[in-house]
Amino acid sequence: MNKKSLHKILQSVATGKTSVDKAAKALANISFENIDFAHIDHNRSLRKGFPEVVFGEGKTAEQIIRIIEKINKEEDIVLVTRVSRNKAETINSHLPDIEYHQDARMIIFKKNKISMQGKGKILVLSAGTSDIPVAKEAYLTAKNMGNQVEAVFDVGVAGIHRLFNYQKKINEALVLIVVAGMEGALPSVVAGMVSRPVIAVPTSVGYGVNFGGLTALFAMLNSCSSNVTVVNIDNGFGAGYFASVINRM
Amino acid sequence: MNKKSLHKILQSVATGKTSVDKAAKALANISFENIDFAHIDHNRSLRKGFPEVVFGEGKTAEQIIRIIEKINKEEDIVLVTRVSRNKAETINSHLPDIEYHQDARMIIFKKNKISMQGKGKILVLSAGTSDIPVAKEAYLTAKNMGNQVEAVFDVGVAGIHRLFNYQKKINEALVLIVVAGMEGALPSVVAGMVSRPVIAVPTSVGYGVNFGGLTALFAMLNSCSSNVTVVNIDNGFGAGYFASVINRM
Amino acid sequence: MNKKSLHKILQSVATGKTSVDKAAKALANISFENIDFAHIDHNRSLRKGFPEVVFGEGKTAEQIIRIIEKINKEEDIVLVTRVSRNKAETINSHLPDIEYHQDARMIIFKKNKISMQGKGKILVLSAGTSDIPVAKEAYLTAKNMGNQVEAVFDVGVAGIHRLFNYQKKINEALVLIVVAGMEGALPSVVAGMVSRPVIAVPTSVGYGVNFGGLTALFAMLNSCSSNVTVVNIDNGFGAGYFASVINRM
Amino acid sequence: MNKKSLHKILQSVATGKTSVDKAAKALANISFENIDFAHIDHNRSLRKGFPEVVFGEGKTAEQIIRIIEKINKEEDIVLVTRVSRNKAETINSHLPDIEYHQDARMIIFKKNKISMQGKGKILVLSAGTSDIPVAKEAYLTAKNMGNQVEAVFDVGVAGIHRLFNYQKKINEALVLIVVAGMEGALPSVVAGMVSRPVIAVPTSVGYGVNFGGLTALFAMLNSCSSNVTVVNIDNGFGAGYFASVINRM
Amino acid sequence: MNKKSLHKILQSVATGKTSVDKAAKALANISFENIDFAHIDHNRSLRKGFPEVVFGEGKTAEQIIRIIEKINKEEDIVLVTRVSRNKAETINSHLPDIEYHQDARMIIFKKNKISMQGKGKILVLSAGTSDIPVAKEAYLTAKNMGNQVEAVFDVGVAGIHRLFNYQKKINEALVLIVVAGMEGALPSVVAGMVSRPVIAVPTSVGYGVNFGGLTALFAMLNSCSSNVTVVNIDNGFGAGYFASVINRM
Amino acid sequence: MNKKSLHKILQSVATGKTSVDKAAKALANISFENIDFAHIDHNRSLRKGFPEVVFGEGKTAEQIIRIIEKINKEEDIVLVTRVSRNKAETINSHLPDIEYHQDARMIIFKKNKISMQGKGKILVLSAGTSDIPVAKEAYLTAKNMGNQVEAVFDVGVAGIHRLFNYQKKINEALVLIVVAGMEGALPSVVAGMVSRPVIAVPTSVGYGVNFGGLTALFAMLNSCSSNVTVVNIDNGFGAGYFASVINRM
Amino acid sequence: MNKKSLHKILQSVATGKTSVDKAAKALANISFENIDFAHIDHNRSLRKGFPEVVFGEGKTAEQIIRIIEKINKEEDIVLVTRVSRNKAETINSHLPDIEYHQDARMIIFKKNKISMQGKGKILVLSAGTSDIPVAKEAYLTAKNMGNQVEAVFDVGVAGIHRLFNYQKKINEALVLIVVAGMEGALPSVVAGMVSRPVIAVPTSVGYGVNFGGLTALFAMLNSCSSNVTVVNIDNGFGAGYFASVINRM
Amino acid sequence: MNKKSLHKILQSVATGKTSVDKAAKALANISFENIDFAHIDHNRSLRKGFPEVVFGEGKTAEQIIRIIEKINKEEDIVLVTRVSRNKAETINSHLPDIEYHQDARMIIFKKNKISMQGKGKILVLSAGTSDIPVAKEAYLTAKNMGNQVEAVFDVGVAGIHRLFNYQKKINEALVLIVVAGMEGALPSVVAGMVSRPVIAVPTSVGYGVNFGGLTALFAMLNSCSSNVTVVNIDNGFGAGYFASVINRM
Repeated sequence: MNKKSLHKILQSVATGKTSVDKAAKALANISFENIDFAHIDHNRSLRKGFPEVVFGEGKTAEQIIRIIEKINKEEDIVLVTRVSRNKAETINSHLPDIEYHQDARMIIFKKNKISMQGKGKILVLSAGTSDIPVAKEAYLTAKNMGNQVEAVFDVGVAGIHRLFNYQKKINEALVLIVVAGMEGALPSVVAGMVSRPVIAVPTSVGYGVNFGGLTALFAMLNSCSSNVTVVNIDNGFGAGYFASVINRM
Repeated sequence: MNKKSLHKILQSVATGKTSVDKAAKALANISFENIDFAHIDHNRSLRKGFPEVVFGEGKTAEQIIRIIEKINKEEDIVLVTRVSRNKAETINSHLPDIEYHQDARMIIFKKNKISMQGKGKILVLSAGTSDIPVAKEAYLTAKNMGNQVEAVFDVGVAGIHRLFNYQKKINEALVLIVVAGMEGALPSVVAGMVSRPVIAVPTSVGYGVNFGGLTALFAMLNSCSSNVTVVNIDNGFGAGYFASVINRM
Repeated sequence: MNKKSLHKILQSVATGKTSVDKAAKALANISFENIDFAHIDHNRSLRKGFPEVVFGEGKTAEQIIRIIEKINKEEDIVLVTRVSRNKAETINSHLPDIEYHQDARMIIFKKNKISMQGKGKILVLSAGTSDIPVAKEAYLTAKNMGNQVEAVFDVGVAGIHRLFNYQKKINEALVLIVVAGMEGALPSVVAGMVSRPVIAVPTSVGYGVNFGGLTALFAMLNSCSSNVTVVNIDNGFGAGYFASVINRM
Repeated sequence: MNKKSLHKILQSVATGKTSVDKAAKALANISFENIDFAHIDHNRSLRKGFPEVVFGEGKTAEQIIRIIEKINKEEDIVLVTRVSRNKAETINSHLPDIEYHQDARMIIFKKNKISMQGKGKILVLSAGTSDIPVAKEAYLTAKNMGNQVEAVFDVGVAGIHRLFNYQKKINEALVLIVVAGMEGALPSVVAGMVSRPVIAVPTSVGYGVNFGGLTALFAMLNSCSSNVTVVNIDNGFGAGYFASVINRM
Repeated sequence: MNKKSLHKILQSVATGKTSVDKAAKALANISFENIDFAHIDHNRSLRKGFPEVVFGEGKTAEQIIRIIEKINKEEDIVLVTRVSRNKAETINSHLPDIEYHQDARMIIFKKNKISMQGKGKILVLSAGTSDIPVAKEAYLTAKNMGNQVEAVFDVGVAGIHRLFNYQKKINEALVLIVVAGMEGALPSVVAGMVSRPVIAVPTSVGYGVNFGGLTALFAMLNSCSSNVTVVNIDNGFGAGYFASVINRM
Repeated sequence: MNKKSLHKILQSVATGKTSVDKAAKALANISFENIDFAHIDHNRSLRKGFPEVVFGEGKTAEQIIRIIEKINKEEDIVLVTRVSRNKAETINSHLPDIEYHQDARMIIFKKNKISMQGKGKILVLSAGTSDIPVAKEAYLTAKNMGNQVEAVFDVGVAGIHRLFNYQKKINEALVLIVVAGMEGALPSVVAGMVSRPVIAVPTSVGYGVNFGGLTALFAMLNSCSSNVTVVNIDNGFGAGYFASVINRM
Repeated sequence: MNKKSLHKILQSVATGKTSVDKAAKALANISFENIDFAHIDHNRSLRKGFPEVVFGEGKTAEQIIRIIEKINKEEDIVLVTRVSRNKAETINSHLPDIEYHQDARMIIFKKNKISMQGKGKILVLSAGTSDIPVAKEAYLTAKNMGNQVEAVFDVGVAGIHRLFNYQKKINEALVLIVVAGMEGALPSVVAGMVSRPVIAVPTSVGYGVNFGGLTALFAMLNSCSSNVTVVNIDNGFGAGYFASVINRM
Repeated sequence: MNKKSLHKILQSVATGKTSVDKAAKALANISFENIDFAHIDHNRSLRKGFPEVVFGEGKTAEQIIRIIEKINKEEDIVLVTRVSRNKAETINSHLPDIEYHQDARMIIFKKNKISMQGKGKILVLSAGTSDIPVAKEAYLTAKNMGNQVEAVFDVGVAGIHRLFNYQKKINEALVLIVVAGMEGALPSVVAGMVSRPVIAVPTSVGYGVNFGGLTALFAMLNSCSSNVTVVNIDNGFGAGYFASVINRM
């Protein structure tokens, strides 16, 4: 339940269009709804400004379908992250209106066009081509939370002139999301160029001592540039969400 | 061999119904039985109050079948943990009376209804939907060891009002099992609310720096609440067993 | 060199008060200044909105003194982090006007009163008493970068009613810095309560499997609340800096 | 504030001995008391059956003194753990009535003799002589929480006949705390002998690949005996506390 | 080339049965033979008393076949370790006389019956049923290197009476190989009972913090019994080989 | 774009054969070319002496095809590393002229015969047969970058006479690449024999505590011979590239 | 109590020289002796052929003195390992007859000259000069357990001709102890040269990624030579003890 | 013994100036010299082009003095690394002619001026001021091995314009040594700018998840620039040595 629908119900009661009983029943689920294997947090939209986002990994397709249906009743948009292609197909056969983005492994289910809420532009940069899936997850999250977002891929430090070519785009962004695997050096370099916040996203791209992204993560946490914070490995969603939160401030 | 059957044999000897020879043969296996690839610990039931529980991983379906048959001769119940669906089907085709719980990956084979032995109620809480398989393993173990058990799933700290809604259930429980992956914060919060023992079970749910459950495990061992102890990652069985042990005290 | 002094020089040239030659010499150091063991980045203030902050660890007192003197010529404020008491005393005997905060291990050297630049209030929360040094570092950094900052210490999850008592303060803050050691659960709980950005700072407080703060760090990176990003262990400075950056947006 | 003193105040009001105003003031601190660097959780005793225990590490002697004084006003006993000899001496010079146990690094400050609350006997076993400090911390905690406790030291598995010699003591205990460093094998062996709960405490005793106690910790979490749970490395206090909690059930 | 065949050739030359030229050619390969993807170490048998043993992992079936054929020309026996069932079948279709032991994943190819060379009996003990594959690898290696070997499986510390039942067998063995996963406690307990050398083999059996055998390995290296040395995780072959080496001393 | 083609265009303009407009267009891509999912670094050949090498892992076959086509327009050779057999077949069906080396998992696509540029001979040594794929990657890289290369496989330290047999080859090489898994001892031994640079390549060959190559990597970084540097695990390509760079000096 | 003294008492009873009562008292301590902070295992000498060796770390000087006195009553020799210089001096002032070896940090206290019990010669090799303390601990242990021992220091693989110079000594040894830090390559090379058992001892010598000896340990466990087993880091004592055990077989 | 002195002796024999006996004695030590706690490798200079360099850590001042004296007899220069100030002073009081460089913790003892042997210039870059000690060790090593060396400190990526200011120096160097702690990003950026070999040296500078230099090390091994190899953490000496080796090629 978001602010808009809460107001609508209350006005409807105020104007006598809705009986108190019916309204009470509608509001009963504001706190949360217990569907046995999950407690849908319908209050999240009011409390945090965006409905609950579903973590798809470790849930069955059937569980995801039921959760989408429950959230969908109260909200304009449902996001599901980390959904494999197979699960997505099962879900799609029940809910034909979902968008599934295979590279980002993300389901988006929305009733209306998203309205813009962010103050500035969010720029997503990726160090390599192999980092694109994570960068896309960040891009789609930020976009669907009502932000203007741009993305530039494969501008890592091995050919740093490629990055400097985008200096103008970089300077114009209000928030930057920088996605990198391997040695994870890109966020430090970008953060050294701007006064804006940089959200660093390590990816599991690489081999040997990249340790599934740990090296990039630790490098980013050690950044000698101070306008950098970090999210979990491959957590494009978290970066997009956080960027969106600060872009509304 | 449990206490009841031991007494029965001895009384039968005392009343002359069973010859000394026959009884001696029956009692020979009290210590253990060597079936080449395993030493069935028939004494465990007498010594520890519950028959040997079979760790299913790394054993073939054939080995499990033979072990179940051997334990079953002497005991009222056999539990087998960590059994994949495939193995369970093979086992089922030989032993059609087993119950197989796929989400908990557990086989239960019992002759009679379980009699209640616990003093209070055991409450199983899970932080997320994806933690349910481990929570179910704890639930089924405690239940089949003769306890009154209840479970509430998906009440993690991201929407802590969901947890507080169950304050009454939480206060009434004599023992609490709290199952969580990711940051593993739930057991600390729950333990801060009650004076009862909390058994924390980390799960491997999550990605990146959750390290297959290590982060949750270490967080739980670092709990700033003192009425918490911890079992191995995904060890729902161990938590259910330990809860059962202290609920009998 | 900050924006203000750059404008002053250029206006002085425009009005003929300063000769071109003298101005040229003054501007020569805008890029950086090589003092052999360091390259002072005088451009940082223009580029990033705040002068270079000195990382005190691994530098001798003598090196720190010279760096402070060089930055001080061009800027209104110099911050030095991670300075031991011994080093601070040596520095103080040469530069009697520095402020040294022993708990935060920080030197602040400023010419004028700081002017407020942040839009909202920054709230620093610490889970325990032992986390205060890191929380203080965050507090002092944010304050000296021109923000209104408040701090509440020792409100960890073992007695969560202490935290809820500050609900109003928490709701009013535009940015939250949450500092915690041990299991690092506090940022998740706080982030679940608000729609604002939470910057989580793990501390090395604890023992055994807290691994000098790694457990808290990983727990925070695994937070099931999405409005959380994380900085390095004990990096109160980084959190204060980042909070300041987003509070200016 | 514990249950006894709460009842006393309320009865005093009921009989008119205490004015409502004076009682209200006395009860105001039930929730917690903010002394700037700490929030004393006076409610803990009511909520959890034992007053807040102070974690001494990372706190100054002055902070500890003030916290002891605050808790002491409301409670019959104050425990402080992980206090170095130096700090203890400073504290002692201000609070001459404290007991300091150097091997366990523990301060105990009590007004009255402890009354017995536990149902059975708690037995503390240590594998080696070097594990005694941790075992003592467990022993003192359990004892001062009102339990009958016994301890046997240096009965590790390298000479297992020493352990079997105490079979009777082991069988009689209602709860067992087993402390071990190095390979951490003792809890598994003891747990295999009894049906009672075993709380395993890994210690940092050893060298090389004992990793400051990690090897013992992991060995204990992997125990093939199911009646074992585990606390953090060197956390004798936690084991004593948990043993006490289940001994009251 | 082993000692026997070396003597045979030299005698054959001495008696004129073999021409010097032909003998020279036969002896040329004593040092090693380069077959491009491998340098067969034909000298190993002379130098170390047993021919080169082939590590099957990471080699193709074709490579293994060619290596077996080359070694087989000079030696009485060829062992290949860590061979998957699939590879073994391909190899078998070319070399029908190999024995393949699926549980131990081992190929044995011998011309003659093995002659006994060991002085005493080697005893292989395994803690659990799931450890049998590794124990079998040790057993088969020791047996095929000419030792009298016995094995007892599933006598772990959770039911230690099972172990003590074999006290006589244990006392009679000249060398003991003790195989255990999980907490890896068995070698310490066994080593405490005897004066003979114990070779401890950690296995990857277990889950969570057993870390694929690391916990057992580290526990064994930390053994408080001194007559224990350790080999790599799952290295049953190495243990069998080493046991054989010291049994010939 | 390499030096040769740059000169050709400029001469063509100088002699009037090419119009300024047409040349300008041809040179526009010197910096880089944005094909959305990648920024082809056409400048790399000029800047670094060898065109961009494509990291095949994590890229789709379609992406690799398009990148090859783009680089191929400007350069004489394209290398793609870490390409699985499946991907290679898809690529091959579009680009029939590629060479695919399955053991090295490498695609080589060249217009002309490579011209020799190295000063001396590069020698690739591998410790075991299972290390050959990585050694081959190094061999092919160095060869296709214009060097004279030789390789000797399976000369590890367990039979060190095999290595000493190649003393002459080893002494003649100007650069040595030494590839080893397991304990990674070979580079130290080889480096102790020569005054030339040794590039050590750890491989993931082994099991248990080889940790996927980490043990070999760390052993090599700890080498007590000083003429050794190290590349990432399984990074045969990097070793071949670096050897080539220093062989041109 | 060792075999000799046991026989003496029994003979003395047999011949009437000692009364049964007096003998019974003398034998009462055969099992163990409880001195509160330790259970002296007087049975160890009978069971394992050598009296209990005291692990000095984590014990106070006072505890060590009392333990030495207790063991000394029953045995001809007492060894104490890992004793710092300071502790040794305190002990020495009470027990002036102890030998203290500062480099090996070892106390030896013996009544008589050691009688030779080993069959062959034990050779201790160290890779570097910095490894000597650990090598000495092995040397002294083996020597005082009745073996002929020789030692050669600083023959690591960086100058392998130094090692080959000792080929004869190496071939003559029945057991080899090879001590190495850094990359830990020496045991593999030595083991490749002989058919005898090699006990590898990793040391904590080195820096960076030697991880306090872990790299050497793991390298040794990964040895491609099969006649190698390994003990804990810096555990010279364990190696000397094990060598002694197999030299008596 | 270096090549020059070997020739001198042989010529002296050829011309009859030195008797064969005297020469034989002089040459006897060419292989190595056993001084009990060390085997001085006098052959190293002939074999590797530079005399043995002494690793000072873990050796006593007395041992270092004797080793210097022995090497000094045969060679023109002796280097000792990782020598603390205290040890250096003891050594200096015996050998007054040594140079001790405290920041690099290095002793240099030379008879003559070093003659230039390198072909090009070696450039040492450090990311921060705190990295200077390691950079100095590299600088001094390369310089004293006969190379032209330059150094620029504190040009890390947080202010990347500082680095680009040295583009000319960077382009002119034949070999580059790049020293960095924290996130270790500098070597990747530098290597992307040049075609020359870059030797990356991680330092232990930083805190939290820099893990004493591991993060920088792993970042460097993951470098997306291919002309990079890596040495151990803080191993400035190794980098200087290797740079010298390839600068002579």
